[in-house]
Amino acid sequence: MSFDLTAYMADRAQAVDRALDRFLPRESAPPASLHKAMRYSVFAGGKRLRPVLVAAGAEAVGGTLEAVMPAACAVEMIHTYSLIHDDLPAMDNDDFRRGVPTSHKVFGEAIAILAGDALLTLAFRLLANSSPAGGEAGRLRDMLIEVADAAGSAGMVGGQVADIECEGKVAGAAIVDYIHTHKTAALIRASIRSGAILAGASAAELKALGVVGDSLGLAFQIMDDILDITATSEELGKTAGKDQAQQKATYPAVHGIEASRRRAQALVADAHAALAPFGERALPLRALGTFIIERKA
Amino acid sequence: MSFDLTAYMADRAQAVDRALDRFLPRESAPPASLHKAMRYSVFAGGKRLRPVLVAAGAEAVGGTLEAVMPAACAVEMIHTYSLIHDDLPAMDNDDFRRGVPTSHKVFGEAIAILAGDALLTLAFRLLANSSPAGGEAGRLRDMLIEVADAAGSAGMVGGQVADIECEGKVAGAAIVDYIHTHKTAALIRASIRSGAILAGASAAELKALGVVGDSLGLAFQIMDDILDITATSEELGKTAGKDQAQQKATYPAVHGIEASRRRAQALVADAHAALAPFGERALPLRALGTFIIERKA
Repeated sequence: MSFDLTAYMADRAQAVDRALDRFLPRESAPPASLHKAMRYSVFAGGKRLRPVLVAAGAEAVGGTLEAVMPAACAVEMIHTYSLIHDDLPAMDNDDFRRGVPTSHKVFGEAIAILAGDALLTLAFRLLANSSPAGGEAGRLRDMLIEVADAAGSAGMVGGQVADIECEGKVAGAAIVDYIHTHKTAALIRASIRSGAILAGASAAELKALGVVGDSLGLAFQIMDDILDITATSEELGKTAGKDQAQQKATYPAVHGIEASRRRAQALVADAHAALAPFGERALPLRALGTFIIERKA
Repeated sequence: MSFDLTAYMADRAQAVDRALDRFLPRESAPPASLHKAMRYSVFAGGKRLRPVLVAAGAEAVGGTLEAVMPAACAVEMIHTYSLIHDDLPAMDNDDFRRGVPTSHKVFGEAIAILAGDALLTLAFRLLANSSPAGGEAGRLRDMLIEVADAAGSAGMVGGQVADIECEGKVAGAAIVDYIHTHKTAALIRASIRSGAILAGASAAELKALGVVGDSLGLAFQIMDDILDITATSEELGKTAGKDQAQQKATYPAVHGIEASRRRAQALVADAHAALAPFGERALPLRALGTFIIERKA
């Protein structure tokens, strides 16, 4: 069961980039500054992990990236909007992201806030325009609710609130788990499951992919925390060591680096176990799990 | 054709308030600060004009408010999120709105930004959960796209960008029209049409309601500009005279107060003409048009 993840990710990421370029408004259309800012952050690099997970989720149940492309681009836009807003001076106050100046440093705070707003809105427009397997309204609705719940106050935005409110305080294991599962894992879970919903997944398949999403999502954020400590700013494309400097509630801060790494490995093992019934169709998701704990940046 | 608009608006607004209370997360659920901020701004007053227009749009084609309630609440959440973000220090920097301190004055900038984000996301969750007439997926999709386009970079957010970028410059008639049709009229148009789409409107009906929405939306914003000059802060519940102080691009600034008032009256006459084929079902929309040019705050 060998699988070339590097080629797979490169291929899917290129297709996603072409689709993002089609779906985003032209810079020449007014208001140009806003469209420029939207494109600047979407095309500022990034691995396209979430769109690739939408594809892998669809493929695990027999679908294709092509058929779920609007949803794949939508989750990337939601991720990008969250980064733009998180980086604002009123939040994490970050000057660099993915190796380039953050949106508000280039376009000013007002345009950065509005570019985030517009990306979130465009994401839901794309999701609405998805074509569910069999043309079923129920699937379209389920998928929209899946993504909205993951992105909203009970998901990603809620996690960001907890993250901000914990800064500088001594955070326990429970609050770190809350932040990580909400701020990061929720959208990763929704990425995998939304692709699967659109591709016609059964209830049992969706349940298993929920376990996969929870596990990979949390493992991803734990490794992110570890890399913030062990990697250089150059490798990360953003300021390394920022979590500790800002006294962020992180997994290694609570559990130590080694225990954190073991926890991430155990989570990916859980994901691999949950993927067993999917057979060869889940090769991309399996490989993405391994990638999450082995990546260097 | 007498119609008691005051009673109609009070009745619909009360039903919308009860539904908003049901749809918004409890303050007791974490993160409490975020949910408190979301509720604070949604329940800080306001006429519920947009939800009432969703109801009136549905009723014009034989529907009911009850059947379009999630959409009615969704457009109010989108309107509220836009006010929270517009009031931020990086944008219009307003300390008061609807007679009470703005969100960032009470909760801080970070929570205000995130409360706006969460309201926008919840709005799309509610829209996704709407029940279109006949259970048709096509109608659900059309309605979602209608609202997303009105709220996004080619609609409300685009208008806000132009508004900010024009501050302090001498704006011509074309740019003022662009700002007003995008920042305000787009969501008013989408409110009327989304109710009608969900209630099963025909293509011809939707076209007519588009004319109604464009006309009432622009008339509403022109009257808003006029009231900013002629009303007191107490009447408005926000700082009067702010447009002139901030050198905003407004209709009266370009055309003068009297010509602006005549233009608003002509627009409402256009709306009334477009509503003729709807007969008695359009009484609420007709009365809302008259209200828009006669209101004092």
